[in-house]
Amino acid sequence: MDRFVTGLEPGREGIDALIDAAQTLKAAPRPGGPGPLAGRSVAALFLNPSLRTRASLEAAVVQLGGHLIPLSSGSGIWSLEFRDGAVMDGGAEEHVEDAVGALCRYADALAVRAYPDLVDWQRDREDLAVRAVARYATVPVVNLESAMYHPCQGLADLMTWREVLGRDLRGRRLSLVWTWHPKALPMAVPDSVVLMASLAGMDVTVAHPDGYDLDAEVLATAERQAGEAGGRVRVTRDRDAALSGAEVVYARSWGGVPWYGKGNEEYRHKARLSHWRIDGMDMAKTADATLMHPLPVRRNVEVEDAVLRSPRSAVLRQAENRLHVQKALLARMLGG
Amino acid sequence: MDRFVTGLEPGREGIDALIDAAQTLKAAPRPGGPGPLAGRSVAALFLNPSLRTRASLEAAVVQLGGHLIPLSSGSGIWSLEFRDGAVMDGGAEEHVEDAVGALCRYADALAVRAYPDLVDWQRDREDLAVRAVARYATVPVVNLESAMYHPCQGLADLMTWREVLGRDLRGRRLSLVWTWHPKALPMAVPDSVVLMASLAGMDVTVAHPDGYDLDAEVLATAERQAGEAGGRVRVTRDRDAALSGAEVVYARSWGGVPWYGKGNEEYRHKARLSHWRIDGMDMAKTADATLMHPLPVRRNVEVEDAVLRSPRSAVLRQAENRLHVQKALLARMLGG
Amino acid sequence: MDRFVTGLEPGREGIDALIDAAQTLKAAPRPGGPGPLAGRSVAALFLNPSLRTRASLEAAVVQLGGHLIPLSSGSGIWSLEFRDGAVMDGGAEEHVEDAVGALCRYADALAVRAYPDLVDWQRDREDLAVRAVARYATVPVVNLESAMYHPCQGLADLMTWREVLGRDLRGRRLSLVWTWHPKALPMAVPDSVVLMASLAGMDVTVAHPDGYDLDAEVLATAERQAGEAGGRVRVTRDRDAALSGAEVVYARSWGGVPWYGKGNEEYRHKARLSHWRIDGMDMAKTADATLMHPLPVRRNVEVEDAVLRSPRSAVLRQAENRLHVQKALLARMLGG
Repeated sequence: MDRFVTGLEPGREGIDALIDAAQTLKAAPRPGGPGPLAGRSVAALFLNPSLRTRASLEAAVVQLGGHLIPLSSGSGIWSLEFRDGAVMDGGAEEHVEDAVGALCRYADALAVRAYPDLVDWQRDREDLAVRAVARYATVPVVNLESAMYHPCQGLADLMTWREVLGRDLRGRRLSLVWTWHPKALPMAVPDSVVLMASLAGMDVTVAHPDGYDLDAEVLATAERQAGEAGGRVRVTRDRDAALSGAEVVYARSWGGVPWYGKGNEEYRHKARLSHWRIDGMDMAKTADATLMHPLPVRRNVEVEDAVLRSPRSAVLRQAENRLHVQKALLARMLGG
Repeated sequence: MDRFVTGLEPGREGIDALIDAAQTLKAAPRPGGPGPLAGRSVAALFLNPSLRTRASLEAAVVQLGGHLIPLSSGSGIWSLEFRDGAVMDGGAEEHVEDAVGALCRYADALAVRAYPDLVDWQRDREDLAVRAVARYATVPVVNLESAMYHPCQGLADLMTWREVLGRDLRGRRLSLVWTWHPKALPMAVPDSVVLMASLAGMDVTVAHPDGYDLDAEVLATAERQAGEAGGRVRVTRDRDAALSGAEVVYARSWGGVPWYGKGNEEYRHKARLSHWRIDGMDMAKTADATLMHPLPVRRNVEVEDAVLRSPRSAVLRQAENRLHVQKALLARMLGG
Repeated sequence: MDRFVTGLEPGREGIDALIDAAQTLKAAPRPGGPGPLAGRSVAALFLNPSLRTRASLEAAVVQLGGHLIPLSSGSGIWSLEFRDGAVMDGGAEEHVEDAVGALCRYADALAVRAYPDLVDWQRDREDLAVRAVARYATVPVVNLESAMYHPCQGLADLMTWREVLGRDLRGRRLSLVWTWHPKALPMAVPDSVVLMASLAGMDVTVAHPDGYDLDAEVLATAERQAGEAGGRVRVTRDRDAALSGAEVVYARSWGGVPWYGKGNEEYRHKARLSHWRIDGMDMAKTADATLMHPLPVRRNVEVEDAVLRSPRSAVLRQAENRLHVQKALLARMLGG
């Protein structure tokens, strides 16, 4: 496996093996010896800001004995052209084919974080940046969050579900609940949550207001995967129905396609949706559910402080598991 | 000791031991073997620019065998909310509790640099950023300069005083002299100079124009410490009196609280204070004093070139000692 | 050798030895053992953006067992004053003498990238930034591209010529051909190409439109070097003549001194020069030439996609050789 873009590349059994390896690394995080990445470098292109991703990736690489070369827009990366055959007389300074070609001569793997523009959904969902890196790279490529997928978050969430609910997740009830947020956010996290949960055979409910439909192709894949694994995927506007009986409440906001490219129109529309905020009464409707969120979270806007700080909150466990799954992934892609 | 925020946490004897350890490291900077930070990472949040601090911290961590994860505003850090219970519907993307909670899962220590806003002194002096990191962190925390304290600079200065004047600093005459500067600067350095010098029992004189009073609580602490150690703290508007007989002239600018939040008003007012610049005639009034400044220095505005380049200038020695005291501090907080 | 600023410091034989060492490192990139830079740090000041330079330098240092401290404008570097004796009451926060003085206490070598302003040629060609770093540093200094020189690129290009044409380059035909580009670019790369090729005794032709003359002193040095080595340097406006019989076509744009500081005037003037673009018909005029470019390249503006992707393109080989020559250079300057 030398591409980890959608997160589904390893297949169900391969993903289970990654989580097993991550659990082993979590139990004994820093074994002696040279480490599987000794003498190896990973170049990471951060086309967008990052805290957990940058820090957890760097810690993962270092704990495996390797070295991270972080490159950020504005200092380490020229503005990139992603379209094949483009006549580059505009603002883009370098074609991704050349940038990736050069980096593959210096590093043993590439990782890339590239948010969508949130202006044109048809264009965003092509995931030009990460797809271009994956196409041109001659070394392994890891997606650190693109327009469509956040597969390392998906792995960390799967690991967290297994820790909380047990190894066999078939039929266990996860509700992904849209939250109010002052900005329009990418769909990568909800996509990866739905894809990973359905792959594990969970009983998945997605609750969101009108206009916030997830990508039809992602949902179709999730439904197919759920069918194969004995699970289910449902979509509802009924927030209370989604909360009732949930074993995991996954809170997350994302932007609505109908408002793409319309500036503040979504913000004004969303003012009526501020009750899409997880509070203690919501949690009381669940089956003593675990609260999850990929962070950063808008406290007291997306989720109440008291819920985030309660023993049912797994948000820091999710954050920690980013480290362990990334170590397992890099060791598999680059080690031995 | 797992917090180094004010710089006074180790106590007088603990600080003396740190300087002793720093002197040992300076004499033999790179011993063989794996180093006390082998396998450890330090995550550093640079909410403000830095040269000496970034480079000396990274060199310190690396020379001890560890790894630095530098995170900067605009690329590695979301805009942070520091107030407990805030409803985060504004510009702040992430609560410091969550950011710190995640980073403590990846790194073995946190370091943070967070300047004051220089708009509201009552708010600035609460030192919200570094206090919040210290409150939420489950790993050791080092202050790399906050609104109130620059304790690593304070340690480096103490080491420099001991190198120049000898181990027993009681009664030795240090004059902290305000300098003209086109910008309003934080008070962290003068605070830490006064606190460290008084702790060591030095005879401290602070000279500044009207309106540039240091924080009353810091001065009270300094006076109490000086009293306990056989030293003294005086404040004067009389620049010549401060220079006369000084063994150390510590040049440094800081902003005046009366002009906080009033834009260019301080600049216009300060135009009349441009004679607060250390030149050769000033140095001739002293007892062959050593010239110190934490850098960066506005040459020929704060201090004349000729003074900075003279054999009496210790500014690069101070800069070098940052490295050694930080190694001693990190080895104590994280080693063994 | 503790300065590598123009690239000519090692002399002809020293440069040949560096390329030999680079070839050895390329053949066996990661030997066992601690590495010649074990325990050493290189501080790199990136006053301008960089991809290849940042990534290849970091990979080089790490593969040699050392550590890179990257410092960028806006986060790791204060705005610097380069003029000796300046009264620093303006925007510059720190004098380069102090910044360099401090960094030399933390790191074992300095590297610096500092573009010209492209406003005043007489000022640019003084190369204030890199010259100041070289003057004040007490450790070895490597130029990562200044207004006048890009010597690491020059070394990588020389290595590439030797790989493509053989070790003895005397009389081999290299044509440096100006290309259309929407921006005015520095002359550092063409300068270093001409200087390295002439040193190797190549038969060098420089082709550019009116107004794009290279620096007279650089050309004079190149002519003298070519004369000593049995080569030749010619300048022409006749693009076809330059292409005819060329064994290497080195495509590169640079700004014209007559338009310095005149905003968009060069852009409007250059609209008539868009035929200065290397395409397949151009390459057909050559002696089966190798196409070179230092990257980033404006695809289909400077050079056609098909040429860049053809087997005759050596652009990624050049990029890779940056790594190897930098390893050889650092090992020589810092190792053993």
